[in-house]
Amino acid sequence: MQKPLILVVNDDGINAPGIRKLISIMNKFGEVVVVAPDSPQSGKGHAITIESTIRCDSVKIDDGPQIEYSCSGTPVDCVKLAMNKLLERKPDLCVSGINHGSNSSINVIYSGTMSAAVEGSLEGIPSIGFSLLDYSHKADFSESESFIKKITKSVLVNGLPDGVCLNVNIPKSEKGKKIQGIKICRQANANWEEEFDERKDPKGRTYYWLTGKFVNFDKGEDTDEWALKNHYISIVPVQFDVTAHNAISKIKNII
Amino acid sequence: MQKPLILVVNDDGINAPGIRKLISIMNKFGEVVVVAPDSPQSGKGHAITIESTIRCDSVKIDDGPQIEYSCSGTPVDCVKLAMNKLLERKPDLCVSGINHGSNSSINVIYSGTMSAAVEGSLEGIPSIGFSLLDYSHKADFSESESFIKKITKSVLVNGLPDGVCLNVNIPKSEKGKKIQGIKICRQANANWEEEFDERKDPKGRTYYWLTGKFVNFDKGEDTDEWALKNHYISIVPVQFDVTAHNAISKIKNII
Repeated sequence: MQKPLILVVNDDGINAPGIRKLISIMNKFGEVVVVAPDSPQSGKGHAITIESTIRCDSVKIDDGPQIEYSCSGTPVDCVKLAMNKLLERKPDLCVSGINHGSNSSINVIYSGTMSAAVEGSLEGIPSIGFSLLDYSHKADFSESESFIKKITKSVLVNGLPDGVCLNVNIPKSEKGKKIQGIKICRQANANWEEEFDERKDPKGRTYYWLTGKFVNFDKGEDTDEWALKNHYISIVPVQFDVTAHNAISKIKNII
Repeated sequence: MQKPLILVVNDDGINAPGIRKLISIMNKFGEVVVVAPDSPQSGKGHAITIESTIRCDSVKIDDGPQIEYSCSGTPVDCVKLAMNKLLERKPDLCVSGINHGSNSSINVIYSGTMSAAVEGSLEGIPSIGFSLLDYSHKADFSESESFIKKITKSVLVNGLPDGVCLNVNIPKSEKGKKIQGIKICRQANANWEEEFDERKDPKGRTYYWLTGKFVNFDKGEDTDEWALKNHYISIVPVQFDVTAHNAISKIKNII
């Protein structure tokens, strides 16, 4: 039997420890092709490159059996290039990450990691985004490994419903605190309270850094934020149909 | 009574004819503040600028009464800056566009225009994205005007359901073909079949241009694609909760 073909992508860049860990795990499941950005692409959402050109080069980063390409584009560009130029057959799985930092609740719409997974599902590939709630370059992925294996195996065996990918967030490793298990959740209703850090350049002209504070308005025990706070792994099924179906009749009355 | 405060944004850039038309329409409804990208930002989706700095300068482009800022960031950055740095009170309405080109069906997730409207709704502002199905810089917006006025008036009077914004697409003006009216729709299940235009640079190294063909798999008469094909304006209510609620129980059985 042919080994499963697995496409690996991320948004932190091809050299980030998170994707190197994910590649090493995926090598145990099948034939791995990596197409990942050549530089950090966090917060790129579902951006695609249409106003400029894209570079994509074959690279060799470690001694693993995987094939790798480094791409100048966004995470979504990477998936499109893989599907349309680089892969010889349709992959059996697309995995994105492991992201350094949370992609829970509203972060899903800003996330390059999750947008790559959404693009995978648009292409009809069962797709999963993995994120660890630890921004550090030295994040500890060891506790994540067995859970990533379990989820990957389940999806390879069972597939996913059409038009649905998985947003998997993993609590940060903490001494004396074990992961409690996995919860299937809905996206919590949360948001960022932005604060722009306003500065002056050497010529006295103003510029800004985007910063902010995450605020959760949603105490529901069926949410990803609740699961993560209680040291569970959260899995939210995510869809690319953004129609507010429940609002259609209301809007018919308004307009 | 205080005039409504209206935030105007787009993704084609502050000098695009589409936003200049939208500003001129909005000036009839209230006090207008424009915060728009200084260069084209099509296809930027929900990208935010976190790896670099953002510039934002007050500008004067025409003789209208509106206040305007030109911003180096993405459409979503523009909304965040407006809300957190530039506006003295919360706007009563956020309008984005008029985009040069379609944002119907799956285009909604790649669209900077629509992502700005989604960000507006995240901030609790009734928000509308307007797009005309005409990519030309010389697009004819005259037939759109009365419909944009009607929709804007309805939303200013009635508001919108929490967490929902509107994706309004307007058929291209064609001689002898009048717009048939407005349909409230769901997002059609469509996708892009990508083709990368592969070229060699003067040094012989490969680069790509992203291109492609739009393919509609969905013949439903309740879809935006059906409405537009039949020369109606389509309005899809759009939400930022991307949870596939119907899939939660299925995923519980799989994982």
